[in-house]
Amino acid sequence: MFSDIHKTAGVCYPQGFTAAGVRAGIKKNGNLDVAVIYTEKKAAVAGVFTKNLVAAAPVHLSKIVVGTGTAHAVVANAGCANACTGEQGIRDAEKMATIAAQELNCRADDVIVASTGLIGSNLPMDKMEAGIKDAVKNLSKDGSVNAGNAIVTTDTYSKACATEVEIGGVQVRFGAIAKGSGMIRPDMATMLCFITTDADIDQKLLQQALRDATEVSFNCMTVDGDMSTNDSVVVLANGAAGNKKIVERGDDYEKFYETLKNICVEMAKRIASDGEGATKFITINVTGAESFADAKKVGMAVANSPLCGTAIFGTDPNVGRFICAVGYSGVQIIPEKVIIKFGDIVVYEKGLVTKFDEEATRKILSEHDIVIDIELGLGDAAATVYTCDLSFQYIKINADYTT
Amino acid sequence: MFSDIHKTAGVCYPQGFTAAGVRAGIKKNGNLDVAVIYTEKKAAVAGVFTKNLVAAAPVHLSKIVVGTGTAHAVVANAGCANACTGEQGIRDAEKMATIAAQELNCRADDVIVASTGLIGSNLPMDKMEAGIKDAVKNLSKDGSVNAGNAIVTTDTYSKACATEVEIGGVQVRFGAIAKGSGMIRPDMATMLCFITTDADIDQKLLQQALRDATEVSFNCMTVDGDMSTNDSVVVLANGAAGNKKIVERGDDYEKFYETLKNICVEMAKRIASDGEGATKFITINVTGAESFADAKKVGMAVANSPLCGTAIFGTDPNVGRFICAVGYSGVQIIPEKVIIKFGDIVVYEKGLVTKFDEEATRKILSEHDIVIDIELGLGDAAATVYTCDLSFQYIKINADYTT
Repeated sequence: MFSDIHKTAGVCYPQGFTAAGVRAGIKKNGNLDVAVIYTEKKAAVAGVFTKNLVAAAPVHLSKIVVGTGTAHAVVANAGCANACTGEQGIRDAEKMATIAAQELNCRADDVIVASTGLIGSNLPMDKMEAGIKDAVKNLSKDGSVNAGNAIVTTDTYSKACATEVEIGGVQVRFGAIAKGSGMIRPDMATMLCFITTDADIDQKLLQQALRDATEVSFNCMTVDGDMSTNDSVVVLANGAAGNKKIVERGDDYEKFYETLKNICVEMAKRIASDGEGATKFITINVTGAESFADAKKVGMAVANSPLCGTAIFGTDPNVGRFICAVGYSGVQIIPEKVIIKFGDIVVYEKGLVTKFDEEATRKILSEHDIVIDIELGLGDAAATVYTCDLSFQYIKINADYTT
Repeated sequence: MFSDIHKTAGVCYPQGFTAAGVRAGIKKNGNLDVAVIYTEKKAAVAGVFTKNLVAAAPVHLSKIVVGTGTAHAVVANAGCANACTGEQGIRDAEKMATIAAQELNCRADDVIVASTGLIGSNLPMDKMEAGIKDAVKNLSKDGSVNAGNAIVTTDTYSKACATEVEIGGVQVRFGAIAKGSGMIRPDMATMLCFITTDADIDQKLLQQALRDATEVSFNCMTVDGDMSTNDSVVVLANGAAGNKKIVERGDDYEKFYETLKNICVEMAKRIASDGEGATKFITINVTGAESFADAKKVGMAVANSPLCGTAIFGTDPNVGRFICAVGYSGVQIIPEKVIIKFGDIVVYEKGLVTKFDEEATRKILSEHDIVIDIELGLGDAAATVYTCDLSFQYIKINADYTT
């Protein structure tokens, strides 16, 4: 579904979108750091943002843009999060939008703004201005890779994908770029994901689809349980595909939603597997819950447990830690009904740690991709949570500022 | 208040209590591993236990003992948690109580039982039986240090303290032993604390006092956010001091409660400062909250943040991580009203990371004992949370099972 060709096309795969990524000197290492995504045809816009009450200036601004219902562009930078920057921060975020709007000949409130990087520093607006102008000049159908690289911080690679789906006899395209990866020093923020599509869809439905897709993807992913000040997921739908506009729930909406969801899940998985210091990618399937919320709560308790994370890093089948996290998740589980599997090996059931084959279990935990199934035996609801292990490298990345 | 002499006296400091710790061969390293604490005069008993739904067998049993209102003894072991052991586990815990009761000439439901160690293994009951008999034979006024050492797992030292207070003109004594320290490999469980006092107090008031004291001490302490299957805090009050029995709230109760609370806070601080891999002890004072629950929630969000923990390990004044954790704590804070101090240096206020003296701030973060003040500016409630930093050693302790 997500090929390498699609990955290169990224946000420029849907018709009518161009992108660029340039060096503005905001990242200390001199890498690409300012990205612009643009659609000449006005797009319906939807966004989901951090629930952190200490939200960064660009988040405040972008919420207003989403409130208008339409947008022409995204302007984003890495290297400075423009968070905890007070009124100056708001002015700087507004200026980013204004500069982009002037260059693109659109309104400032048609420009989504996003920043990621160190918290507490002001944006170098002279560099930013030159960078945005440079990016707009460089907008092209081949610009997605550079745009993706311009928003990464300590990610080990830029995340991107694209796909298409037939809606009402018309081929509709989707593309995305994203960055993770936990909150990190010196770049503390963030998860950013920008999705483009040439589908024609009502803005309210678009917002609903994005909210629902986020719930089962980005909100089911964790690296360290920390939630950044800048997390933003934004989708632009410019209608260039020419499909009959999706204005209500039904087959067309379902196809649209499924595709958007798959994109979000794919990006979430890549972000989790590239978590700070990650050596393994862990998928936790929780089934048999009374509700999705319960299933997710159990999965997140296991995913956020430093003891489970270190056990997997150490290839240690310490089953007690896993049932223990299930037990304190806050969900009213019944220990005797719970079944836990590492890969296809049952390691806990009927209230007991089983006499599992330790050698075979270690082999499963030594793989890069590890699947843990947790059946609660209480209902029909399920959730899947994505995470990574907790390694020495995580501590190193996050502590070694002074050395 | 808590001298070294008192520490040695521990649970035997109050009149009428004896203790012992012996080697039964349950710990693989051959250290002391079975403890008994005894009072011939029947004591009022109160207990607070893990809220983890996967509670260990001894926890189930001890709750029943607390339900009877009185007890004569505590029997505890380290090296095996007797958790996730099903019906066999319950039978083994019952047998621990029965053996101790026979030796001590009391009823089995007068014996509190506690275990700590690896989850999922059954107790070696032959060794246990010999150990309990041996411990009972060795009961003495000098036995607290051995009892304390018999309940530790990966703690780097055994925690103990004792003190006294005048209640109604009578000297009343308290003593305690405790073990931590986060959940660890191969010993996954637990926090245990046994408190003795010769005060005469109504059992319901004793339970209330213990519950309230636990709320501001052990429940305000965290190493890694994981909650074990075996956590138990038990207090025995045998009335040997001869004070007028405390049967209602008032001055006597207040004095009793304050002393019990101080003991619990002292034990909680020692457990936190001896957290797995800890290199620093962190006290987080949250003030200006609308409720104690809110203040605690903010403190725990910061204490449980791996990013804050690694920042302090790395002596990195990365203020953004701290305000960020405050922001996602779930409490309705107003970022502009929050003031954060590292030691006496204001590092965040009015919505901004301040231009603090970096050199001086690093010096504060390089100390062993670090105090972080977080003023929310919303009300009069406060809470203090105790934790430690997150170091390479934490990962090593918890991951290096296979190497």
